[in-house]
Amino acid sequence: MKIENPFFKKKSYLKLDEICNILKIKKIKKSHKIIGISDLKTAKSNEISFFSSLKYLGMLKITKAKYILSIKKYEKIINSFSQPLIVENVLKSVAIITNSFYPDAINDTVDFNLKISSNKKYKKVNFGNNVLLGDGVIIGKNSSIGHNTIIESNVKIGENCDIGSNVIIKNTLIGNNVRILDGSIIGKKGFGFFPGENKNFRYPHVGMVIIGNNSEIGCNNTIDRGSISNTIIGDNTFIDNQVHIAHNVNIGKNCIITAQVGFAGSSIIGNKVLIGGQSGISGHIKIGNNVQIGGGSGVIKDIPNNSKVMGYPAKNIRNFIKDNK
Amino acid sequence: MKIENPFFKKKSYLKLDEICNILKIKKIKKSHKIIGISDLKTAKSNEISFFSSLKYLGMLKITKAKYILSIKKYEKIINSFSQPLIVENVLKSVAIITNSFYPDAINDTVDFNLKISSNKKYKKVNFGNNVLLGDGVIIGKNSSIGHNTIIESNVKIGENCDIGSNVIIKNTLIGNNVRILDGSIIGKKGFGFFPGENKNFRYPHVGMVIIGNNSEIGCNNTIDRGSISNTIIGDNTFIDNQVHIAHNVNIGKNCIITAQVGFAGSSIIGNKVLIGGQSGISGHIKIGNNVQIGGGSGVIKDIPNNSKVMGYPAKNIRNFIKDNK
Amino acid sequence: MKIENPFFKKKSYLKLDEICNILKIKKIKKSHKIIGISDLKTAKSNEISFFSSLKYLGMLKITKAKYILSIKKYEKIINSFSQPLIVENVLKSVAIITNSFYPDAINDTVDFNLKISSNKKYKKVNFGNNVLLGDGVIIGKNSSIGHNTIIESNVKIGENCDIGSNVIIKNTLIGNNVRILDGSIIGKKGFGFFPGENKNFRYPHVGMVIIGNNSEIGCNNTIDRGSISNTIIGDNTFIDNQVHIAHNVNIGKNCIITAQVGFAGSSIIGNKVLIGGQSGISGHIKIGNNVQIGGGSGVIKDIPNNSKVMGYPAKNIRNFIKDNK
Repeated sequence: MKIENPFFKKKSYLKLDEICNILKIKKIKKSHKIIGISDLKTAKSNEISFFSSLKYLGMLKITKAKYILSIKKYEKIINSFSQPLIVENVLKSVAIITNSFYPDAINDTVDFNLKISSNKKYKKVNFGNNVLLGDGVIIGKNSSIGHNTIIESNVKIGENCDIGSNVIIKNTLIGNNVRILDGSIIGKKGFGFFPGENKNFRYPHVGMVIIGNNSEIGCNNTIDRGSISNTIIGDNTFIDNQVHIAHNVNIGKNCIITAQVGFAGSSIIGNKVLIGGQSGISGHIKIGNNVQIGGGSGVIKDIPNNSKVMGYPAKNIRNFIKDNK
Repeated sequence: MKIENPFFKKKSYLKLDEICNILKIKKIKKSHKIIGISDLKTAKSNEISFFSSLKYLGMLKITKAKYILSIKKYEKIINSFSQPLIVENVLKSVAIITNSFYPDAINDTVDFNLKISSNKKYKKVNFGNNVLLGDGVIIGKNSSIGHNTIIESNVKIGENCDIGSNVIIKNTLIGNNVRILDGSIIGKKGFGFFPGENKNFRYPHVGMVIIGNNSEIGCNNTIDRGSISNTIIGDNTFIDNQVHIAHNVNIGKNCIITAQVGFAGSSIIGNKVLIGGQSGISGHIKIGNNVQIGGGSGVIKDIPNNSKVMGYPAKNIRNFIKDNK
Repeated sequence: MKIENPFFKKKSYLKLDEICNILKIKKIKKSHKIIGISDLKTAKSNEISFFSSLKYLGMLKITKAKYILSIKKYEKIINSFSQPLIVENVLKSVAIITNSFYPDAINDTVDFNLKISSNKKYKKVNFGNNVLLGDGVIIGKNSSIGHNTIIESNVKIGENCDIGSNVIIKNTLIGNNVRILDGSIIGKKGFGFFPGENKNFRYPHVGMVIIGNNSEIGCNNTIDRGSISNTIIGDNTFIDNQVHIAHNVNIGKNCIITAQVGFAGSSIIGNKVLIGGQSGISGHIKIGNNVQIGGGSGVIKDIPNNSKVMGYPAKNIRNFIKDNK
């Protein structure tokens, strides 16, 4: 299911030949209307998607997207499932097309159209001092918002939520019974860009952060929103202080993430995963269900279900203990 | 000496047979009044305590508590010193009894009864803009409180203290000549709970943070208050930026803790301990006096006095150097 | 080129024999006027400098400073280039002389002379709610300052800059087209002091933070100002969330520093350096140009140009991979 994103104005469509023009690639004669750009998993048939690594072959096989941005090397593979659009740099092309669909997205500064909260508009919500709210913010009943907290336009917060003080939330959808503790910054753009000689080219981030029911986000966390997909925290997942979660990370349900853990972008974490303090999770990896990761670990490859690992790089915990006797 | 905790309303006592009822264990006929629950070290004779690991055998021998929550396995050992109350899960039982003594403690949200600071009430205290203070806050003379800082009810700050801007302090007692730098969050509840299938069960945190004289807490620190004992920072201990200190940690005097260090819960750190940047200290361990821990270390076991260690896991620094030649 | 420091009032000069008096060392008869104290690299001929390690021999050879604080051991070496002033503790003597030049510098508390921003004074600058500005703050056109942000006296911000919300900036000069994201704390004093038995002696920090053009500083960063030299972030360097940069660190141009990286004091990082998440960089080391440092690394010695390293301690990445197969 694809959740509606209320945060960015999207052009209703680009024609396929416009897209080819923008990317300076050979035009495809058919003049289909393309309504967006998405990852392989969530793309609809009239969206384009992209393929940049054999890691994602499984998703390529089942994607609904008819047109796939990729490089020459993967042209044949893609031909078996969809129609390739061959470019020189996949991610840069994704950025360019995303910019074309969301022309305002790159301009990611502070929202200056906020107003001090008012209990007239939000019944049964408890507001602290100096709370700033954007247009279209939804807050469920019996929720509370702490002092000096900033909630930008169109953020949705469920019922019975407790948002702390000095919190900043943007581009985020939050379930029920969620706690977000003091000083956390949720939904800012991810750390994605293409290096340039004098000026880097910023990657647009049109994704959201989605936080499930019954979860807790600790103090001074930073959770970045997705680039074109979303950053997701599952139901009943508890996160300690000073944790960093980069764009597009998906964390499952019932996880326990202790303090100062860091996640690089686009990794997928299963359910009931327990991660010890200060561990680092590399980008674009997959951690199964019921995995336990010892404190201080550096996880740089996929971890299968039901594993216990520790170390830098992380290995089976028995081997870690044996090697460190 | 047990320091008075002004932050949580406690029932004056529970009868021993009530406690047995709540825990669904065999009733003890004697109907003593039990006035609280504490760790083995600080418990008075009419409080109950708990024993969950042989690590704490030394304290069991000297505890004043007459009744000790524990599991079947330790029944005999406890019998030599105190009277065991046998339960299935020690920590869960502690949480339940703590909840019974402090029925409001679990509801740990923002304090909405704060008021903008006024110099009428606090003489010789310098307040920044938009400072919020709770009821019963005590601030000693010649102290200053920075902009946008929040100090919740009953917090005590000594003389000649400099509290920075954007700081949040609750459930904390602070000595004289202390500096707490910008953005730090002191005294929030610890990251303690029992995992549940759909909803985790939060552990009550009725302890405090106690910060000694002449200490300095850097920017963006998070120091959690204790569960039933306290989190303590000793006199003249200096802490750099982005350090996390979990519940019940005790740090001695004259320590130097550099940036991004993390402490898991309940560890005890001696005096004159020097910890290099990004080191992690596991929970429930003991680090002696005059210990030096090299940067980036992961300390997962006790460290004796006067040691120099480094590595992950941390070992004698000579071995670390030799092994990494 | 030495950039003017507008943040600290300096005595125009101290006489050389006054300096000898203050340090209780043998008087030098000549009564030169010494106009300041600087590191070997930036000292002018009528400033004094200091030499505390053979690491800095190269700089000793080219320094313009005529008088160099050092210890007995290095007296002969210094004699070949400049005139040594022999003391027992170099850094403590530097601190004492710095205090003598900047008598107010040690008193580093919150600036209480701030006022809510006004668009009358700053044309073409967009201010959020509850922005506090000190005297003499300069903000270039088309810049914006987010909600609750604090900018202390004499800070200079260039054109087209976006400063986020809840940011604190002091003692800092910022170029054009710079973004500083929410919750960052820039320019506070470094973590430098001399341990004392009951009270540590704080080291004065009279340096600045200088941030080049086109750079980005992520959320919840802490960047400390220099002690007597400056902390510098080069042009077009992008820094992710929760990064800590200690006093006197110099980072080059076009660097990419990912989340939770920490830099200890006084290290020098070249251009086009890429540092993976959670890496730690020890103090007083030098990292060359075009260096890539894998995530989670602990860099404890100099790294030459064009190297790829990973590990704790960091080594050539090929060896890291081989050793961890």
